[in-house]
Amino acid sequence: MIKFDDIKSLIKDSENIGLSYHVSPDGDAVGSLLSLYFALKKLNKNVTIFSKDNLTNTINLRFLPSINEIDGMNYFVTSDIDLLIILDCGNVERVSCEVDFDKTTTLGIDHHISNDMYCTYNFVQGDASSTGEIVFDIIKNLGIEIDQNIAKCIYTSIMTDTGGLRFESTSQKTFNIVGELVATKFDFWNTYEQLFLYKTFSKVKLLGLVYNELKLVDNQICVIHVTNDMLNKSNSTDEQTNDIVSYGLTIDGVRVSILIKDFNGKHKVSLRSKGCINVCEIAKKFGGGGHIKASAFVTDLKRDVIERMLVEEFRNLLK
Amino acid sequence: MIKFDDIKSLIKDSENIGLSYHVSPDGDAVGSLLSLYFALKKLNKNVTIFSKDNLTNTINLRFLPSINEIDGMNYFVTSDIDLLIILDCGNVERVSCEVDFDKTTTLGIDHHISNDMYCTYNFVQGDASSTGEIVFDIIKNLGIEIDQNIAKCIYTSIMTDTGGLRFESTSQKTFNIVGELVATKFDFWNTYEQLFLYKTFSKVKLLGLVYNELKLVDNQICVIHVTNDMLNKSNSTDEQTNDIVSYGLTIDGVRVSILIKDFNGKHKVSLRSKGCINVCEIAKKFGGGGHIKASAFVTDLKRDVIERMLVEEFRNLLK
Repeated sequence: MIKFDDIKSLIKDSENIGLSYHVSPDGDAVGSLLSLYFALKKLNKNVTIFSKDNLTNTINLRFLPSINEIDGMNYFVTSDIDLLIILDCGNVERVSCEVDFDKTTTLGIDHHISNDMYCTYNFVQGDASSTGEIVFDIIKNLGIEIDQNIAKCIYTSIMTDTGGLRFESTSQKTFNIVGELVATKFDFWNTYEQLFLYKTFSKVKLLGLVYNELKLVDNQICVIHVTNDMLNKSNSTDEQTNDIVSYGLTIDGVRVSILIKDFNGKHKVSLRSKGCINVCEIAKKFGGGGHIKASAFVTDLKRDVIERMLVEEFRNLLK
Repeated sequence: MIKFDDIKSLIKDSENIGLSYHVSPDGDAVGSLLSLYFALKKLNKNVTIFSKDNLTNTINLRFLPSINEIDGMNYFVTSDIDLLIILDCGNVERVSCEVDFDKTTTLGIDHHISNDMYCTYNFVQGDASSTGEIVFDIIKNLGIEIDQNIAKCIYTSIMTDTGGLRFESTSQKTFNIVGELVATKFDFWNTYEQLFLYKTFSKVKLLGLVYNELKLVDNQICVIHVTNDMLNKSNSTDEQTNDIVSYGLTIDGVRVSILIKDFNGKHKVSLRSKGCINVCEIAKKFGGGGHIKASAFVTDLKRDVIERMLVEEFRNLLK
């Protein structure tokens, strides 16, 4: 792994700089990329964004400056690129561009300790809350003034990966950085709303149907169903159901949340827990896996059968 | 108004110190009171909390240290109190204790610019995000180390009145203070969850019913109904409906949110807006009032009649 100051030299010595990130980029990937994009332009570099992903219709990120330029059309890294910086991407399979790694000088910047170090140069800082936090340091180190555009993009990075400065990974340094960003007077209150508060009408309708069916067992186990019928009625896509299992954990007293979803004629089950309940142990019994607090599996069992079995399992665990 | 350093002298010269706040205290009132309570104890003062409000069952604040001591039983300020500090309370009618202002030395600490200056000494700092932010400065000025208990209480104050560091009132200083608080290593991620994420089961059920009936007109006007039947079905109280009108504004594209609620045989209507729509103007036409972005009125009109009239009014405004 290279040292922090080497990044400065690499950038200073490059004229044509490309930027990319992981596919299906989140706010950290997009925010860190765009902040570096604006910063490098201030150094009069030729900067090109390479992205397989089209972000022009991303509801929670559409407020970002220049987001409309990322239309997913430009993703073949050309040979004139002196340096390709890949942000927030842990392995080569997930890079959102086509690049010949043998012929291109690449620099990976990431905060995931699991990063595969697949670039020519790699800078991975596992104690940073987000890639945006690292990019903030790089921009400062390059002597570039943080303007409102840069501030808004780094704010987006940090807020996305800390869940709004609330995850344990958020350090004193993180708060100080965000303080410095808001001091540029960009409209962070509006940015916050766009990032976290806006829902589509169909998502609200889906939640209504989901909440109506939601069950609480022993005041500790929440059971949530999402059926194809609910998706049709609310005009929702399967993508909009990803975070619904975590809603269960926000109900007072709930320690385990179970989501049972129609899934290609089978059922996909997602499990979440709070405290010391190991949901992975249960998911393994059904051929699934995951983490202690977040696991999943797919089953052929009928909805009411799998619900009864899971409630039974968790009742025993919670005894 | 007294100077900041005078607060130090007042506290240093007092042996028996009483603390109070406004009735129906929110997180800022309770958090600033409790942080000062723990800080003054570290100075070996005799500290007494005076509160008409019983906070032992307050769901979103029950994690605060010593919250169970505030049971609403002790609210007559005794004559042995050398100094009564009243936090976050703008006028004498709202003080959560019984006190003879002629015979007691009182110190008001507040961040509401509208404060009536009703105490013997008053310190009002309108540019502070919260009373907790002022109390942080006072505790530091007294030379008291911020421990985890104090940090958790001030964090609660600041987070409550900034909506989780997202309102425009949040300054660079606010972020730096919160950074210093989390550096004490209290469980701020857990505190955040308790403050903002937990809902009762009945609230979730109420939301389900509300979302099912929720309407979107012209993709800009959201109409929400809350009926007595919904309250009964979800086992909810009227109190749980207070924030529901603002849910409408979180739907993508919505500029006006209308809540029509059963209210003692009549209907109570709450209006909220985003951008430049003046809802007060409309509320006045129906005998109500409020602010530009938040207004309300009560009407004898039937639900569908008032809905039709309001939709018509806002359609004209939004043209």
